[in-house]
Amino acid sequence: MIPVSEARSRILAGLSPTPAETVPLAAASGRVLARPVKARLTQPPAAVSAMDGYAVRSADATDGAILDVVGSAPAGHPFAGVVGPGQAVRIFTGGFLPTGADSILLQEDAAAEGSLVTVRETVAEGRWIRPAGLDFTAGETLLEPGRKLTARDIGLAAAANHPWLAVHRAPRIGILATGDEIALPGEPLPPGGIVSSNAHALAALVRAAGGEPVVLPIAPDDEAAIIALAADARGCELLLTTGGASVGDHDLVQKALGPQGFALDFWKIAMRPGKPLIWGRLGDTPLLGLPGNPVSAIVCAVVFLLPALRVMLGQPAGATPTHAAVLGAPLPENDKREDYMRATLSPDGRVVTAFRKQDSSMLKTLARAEALVMRAPYAPALPEGAEVQIIRLDELGI
Amino acid sequence: MIPVSEARSRILAGLSPTPAETVPLAAASGRVLARPVKARLTQPPAAVSAMDGYAVRSADATDGAILDVVGSAPAGHPFAGVVGPGQAVRIFTGGFLPTGADSILLQEDAAAEGSLVTVRETVAEGRWIRPAGLDFTAGETLLEPGRKLTARDIGLAAAANHPWLAVHRAPRIGILATGDEIALPGEPLPPGGIVSSNAHALAALVRAAGGEPVVLPIAPDDEAAIIALAADARGCELLLTTGGASVGDHDLVQKALGPQGFALDFWKIAMRPGKPLIWGRLGDTPLLGLPGNPVSAIVCAVVFLLPALRVMLGQPAGATPTHAAVLGAPLPENDKREDYMRATLSPDGRVVTAFRKQDSSMLKTLARAEALVMRAPYAPALPEGAEVQIIRLDELGI
Repeated sequence: MIPVSEARSRILAGLSPTPAETVPLAAASGRVLARPVKARLTQPPAAVSAMDGYAVRSADATDGAILDVVGSAPAGHPFAGVVGPGQAVRIFTGGFLPTGADSILLQEDAAAEGSLVTVRETVAEGRWIRPAGLDFTAGETLLEPGRKLTARDIGLAAAANHPWLAVHRAPRIGILATGDEIALPGEPLPPGGIVSSNAHALAALVRAAGGEPVVLPIAPDDEAAIIALAADARGCELLLTTGGASVGDHDLVQKALGPQGFALDFWKIAMRPGKPLIWGRLGDTPLLGLPGNPVSAIVCAVVFLLPALRVMLGQPAGATPTHAAVLGAPLPENDKREDYMRATLSPDGRVVTAFRKQDSSMLKTLARAEALVMRAPYAPALPEGAEVQIIRLDELGI
Repeated sequence: MIPVSEARSRILAGLSPTPAETVPLAAASGRVLARPVKARLTQPPAAVSAMDGYAVRSADATDGAILDVVGSAPAGHPFAGVVGPGQAVRIFTGGFLPTGADSILLQEDAAAEGSLVTVRETVAEGRWIRPAGLDFTAGETLLEPGRKLTARDIGLAAAANHPWLAVHRAPRIGILATGDEIALPGEPLPPGGIVSSNAHALAALVRAAGGEPVVLPIAPDDEAAIIALAADARGCELLLTTGGASVGDHDLVQKALGPQGFALDFWKIAMRPGKPLIWGRLGDTPLLGLPGNPVSAIVCAVVFLLPALRVMLGQPAGATPTHAAVLGAPLPENDKREDYMRATLSPDGRVVTAFRKQDSSMLKTLARAEALVMRAPYAPALPEGAEVQIIRLDELGI
């Protein structure tokens, strides 16, 4: 049994980022940037008004002065002339500052009558002007590769005049659930059977993390079937299996795939839930074998697959993010396996309380969990109020 | 000018949840449930083994006893006979407990030889058995309407034998950017023009929040064009406009749509960024008019549109969630408008520091922001370390 952190390092070391593809800006949100986004223009392109009012020469615009309004400059319609002494130009937010003017008289500080405007408050030089390049300058790098693009980033890339962006391709993750006892939802159940839940839960998790799930048909506990279905995963960047990985006589994944050139790296980790975890390579395809227990499968996916997807998407490598929280109820001492306990969180996210029953078959408890409490091997018993590290499931979007 | 909370209440009161649609389980992740998910079966369906080992009668399975192995019960292959006195059945995780047996002898506590197995550790009655219904019972409600489905929920619904789920339809949000000065990314720029960023940033935000954006062509500052394009929004559950909403002569949205039956509710709110905010109804279609400044548009979307989408998706109504944090730098007193300041967060999310420049045209600052610091009207100056309420942008997925 190897420690969780070593298992994760060995998994991440075996993966590399997917190549880039070009996608339309409108489809790039949530994707991971593969090339820097540099500004293709300066924003604003020239000095513009930050408010509605009058573009004036500040030297003229003293309290009580009366100015001639010689034109207007709405956004998108620059004033072509020059603002001379004693003159003003009607201007609106975003309008280009006309030549000769150096500041804005606010609309609410002005009294307009016909083609004249009276200054009601002295204007300071440069007031209410956004200088050219206030936001960014042509050539400036605005977004770095490895960044998962937010809605705000899309706005920034648009403003910088990018109709297309280069992003990492979504890694295709083949998902192969094994077991004679499982059937897809709605399909006839075999005797002694249960409904398969792992493949679709993992597919949703893969999609939420930016991958492209490829759900393969269920493999019965039969070496030939596993071989045939694993072959269907060709072209995937990773093959994920569930089940067939424990220590009994029915641990078929290794048995079936060994003769097909499967190179095992490890298959037992010091973790609960999830002791049997296979990691290796089937030809060119990395293979991560998750346990068949639904809770173990998802918790192992949180701990190993999410970091793996980050590497494949070109994001910085590392463990799934953790946070400090305090215990809402005491915990017993831990044994030799690193433990990930399903737990609820207080509304402020600072108090974490583990469920009493932690059985790895209980999906209902997993669905209700808001966090996983992490416990190191041999961690001592802890009283209520003690600080622990947690993984927040809500922030992972899963 | 009306307060932010009143504006939000009036917006939310004018909206209702979209009807339900049936989607495949595999497409339901991230959707909002419209009907309860009840268990269609009991899980596990019968008592099963939690481990690999031997199903035994605990009365027989004392240290040193030798039992006859009369069959096997892998998952999916129940043993059809009965375990009699002095007998055992080989069993694997998930295998049905055979009639007659009442507990599991762990594989590591057993020594097998031919068809015999020697007990190496006395077995307690009921040990390593998962009773029928440990996870859930047929008819039990597992997931409630209004819940945004996670990957774990998908696993639970699958295990409960649901190939289809009823979810709220994604509300279609028409997005109409207005302004003579704007052009789509990559298109020729008009003189004095800038690239349109609002429509695509808002589309990404709508999609991240579970809506279906419909980006309409850009409307020039021309009443007839606005009328024609607003008509293109028919069939949308909400029409979102940006620009044309401020106090100058070029505030065209109201002017153009008034004669089309636009019923205004309010159009000025005590908020920064974002004073001009239109709310009303164009025929049957609610219309939310956001400011044209890109930062104002996105901040108003966070404060008003995200709660609106939650109501339309059948989620509980309420403000965008806030959290307590402490200031990393002092803040000046606030004026009469509720303020939402762009800010960065410490890695633990507990210290928030507002950017010095808060100009509402600066998209780069918005993209780099991790939180918005909320300041009530007339809030006093605050020192470093004072507690404030923040909106975390990362947890909104935008």
